[in-house]
Amino acid sequence: MPHFSTQRRVEFYETDMAGIVHFSNFFRYMEQAEHEFFRLLGLKISGKTAEGIEIGWPRVACQCDYRAPARYEEVITIDVTIIRQTTRSLTMSYVFSRDGKILASGEMTTVCCTMQEGALKAIEIPPSYLDRLPAVNIAGTANDSP
Amino acid sequence: MPHFSTQRRVEFYETDMAGIVHFSNFFRYMEQAEHEFFRLLGLKISGKTAEGIEIGWPRVACQCDYRAPARYEEVITIDVTIIRQTTRSLTMSYVFSRDGKILASGEMTTVCCTMQEGALKAIEIPPSYLDRLPAVNIAGTANDSP
Amino acid sequence: MPHFSTQRRVEFYETDMAGIVHFSNFFRYMEQAEHEFFRLLGLKISGKTAEGIEIGWPRVACQCDYRAPARYEEVITIDVTIIRQTTRSLTMSYVFSRDGKILASGEMTTVCCTMQEGALKAIEIPPSYLDRLPAVNIAGTANDSP
Amino acid sequence: MPHFSTQRRVEFYETDMAGIVHFSNFFRYMEQAEHEFFRLLGLKISGKTAEGIEIGWPRVACQCDYRAPARYEEVITIDVTIIRQTTRSLTMSYVFSRDGKILASGEMTTVCCTMQEGALKAIEIPPSYLDRLPAVNIAGTANDSP
Repeated sequence: MPHFSTQRRVEFYETDMAGIVHFSNFFRYMEQAEHEFFRLLGLKISGKTAEGIEIGWPRVACQCDYRAPARYEEVITIDVTIIRQTTRSLTMSYVFSRDGKILASGEMTTVCCTMQEGALKAIEIPPSYLDRLPAVNIAGTANDSP
Repeated sequence: MPHFSTQRRVEFYETDMAGIVHFSNFFRYMEQAEHEFFRLLGLKISGKTAEGIEIGWPRVACQCDYRAPARYEEVITIDVTIIRQTTRSLTMSYVFSRDGKILASGEMTTVCCTMQEGALKAIEIPPSYLDRLPAVNIAGTANDSP
Repeated sequence: MPHFSTQRRVEFYETDMAGIVHFSNFFRYMEQAEHEFFRLLGLKISGKTAEGIEIGWPRVACQCDYRAPARYEEVITIDVTIIRQTTRSLTMSYVFSRDGKILASGEMTTVCCTMQEGALKAIEIPPSYLDRLPAVNIAGTANDSP
Repeated sequence: MPHFSTQRRVEFYETDMAGIVHFSNFFRYMEQAEHEFFRLLGLKISGKTAEGIEIGWPRVACQCDYRAPARYEEVITIDVTIIRQTTRSLTMSYVFSRDGKILASGEMTTVCCTMQEGALKAIEIPPSYLDRLPAVNIAGTANDSP
């Protein structure tokens, strides 16, 4: 399955009084890795597509399991895999590790949307994006309502 | 099941360039509601218990499903329910709504821990906490490793 | 001078590994108090004015001096004062205290702007806002470029 | 004067509904650059020094002036200069630019502290740090109270 790996140093402002990275920041790390993956593929997470569609990718679901804490200054590896692709959505998994030890793992499902009269509306992933997304087994569109 | 409800106004710094609350902030809202619930019960999320145990409640799992965006200045209702309690952990559900419309719903599982030689170690929820936690059906301790 | 006072509880996610509120969050507290003040006056920090102008109030300068830390769960008092008003800008001071002890004090200068072709442009504060802003001595417009 | 330059990409979660980086995040960028500078010098922002002192560097003052917004995905250059050093404090300036255009500039003053009975106490910068800090003109200790 399409895969991407990146690294991220933990910043001081991401820690909390327990001396570890606040759990909510793992979702920001996921997003940062996801966007880096998109950039690598020549895709934009927001803005106008080659087809002239104003696009966005709001999250419909996310989750994270925590095994061990991440701490200030540590350099964390984030492994991103597209685990599911439908005509309208992408689900990616994220594995966080340090020196080969898994710290946390999560998932996010995002839906391809356009803005219509101030509201987000799910649309099919446009051809200019499909061309650049690595091939995954494309499942149906069930459960893709934003 | 034990239930608690609170409200929270969306702040400007919690929005992103899509004009909506950044999805990661829903986990901060969950935590804020959880801590408010603990305070109401006379419990502390960190610090020394009546038994003299240095306690903490790290998250082992969390998730959120998003249905509709929350926007700046809106006042959001957060309904918290303790849906599962083991001898060492608590799982709470969180439903976010505005004017009766559900925006998102999530869950967090936290494990009662103490600090031993710089590492978090899962312990049984101490009596001084059990006394104040509303009675839930207490299940086993499987899957509670932090 | 026009004055407003509010209170804010410190949340867990606002602390850092030093066990205190991260210094950057004082600016978020300032903004939250500023917006609360605006709401009380019947004003909006963004959106369309009665004159039909799409308005915004970007910051041009801010500062904060720190005397004592704020900690988790503490309830902080924030005293807001409009200390300077020009035809295009507002400068407010913010004093943070707990039980009468001053923790920090800061200032923010914001400029009334409208959006023109994707760029912010400073404008005179519209009459519908001046009507509701408490009277301060209005100085000149020097140094108000956004 | 001792100088350091680094770069930082703007992340999506750092933007706000005005479509630009939230002003408070510039202080997080300053901190990140400051810590990177410290690492380069072989110094730690917290922890035990070679002399066995538990050290910390809380901020006593910070400020920022904003000229132009920073936006999602832009790569920002941050130029850090130690502009003042006393026996107990450091003041650094930070200039943010993109393609040579200045976006913002700020300053932070931090004081060398140790933890005594739960409270931060200002101390003289220990020799192991002075050895590695680039030479700046060292002024007196006035106004260094934490």
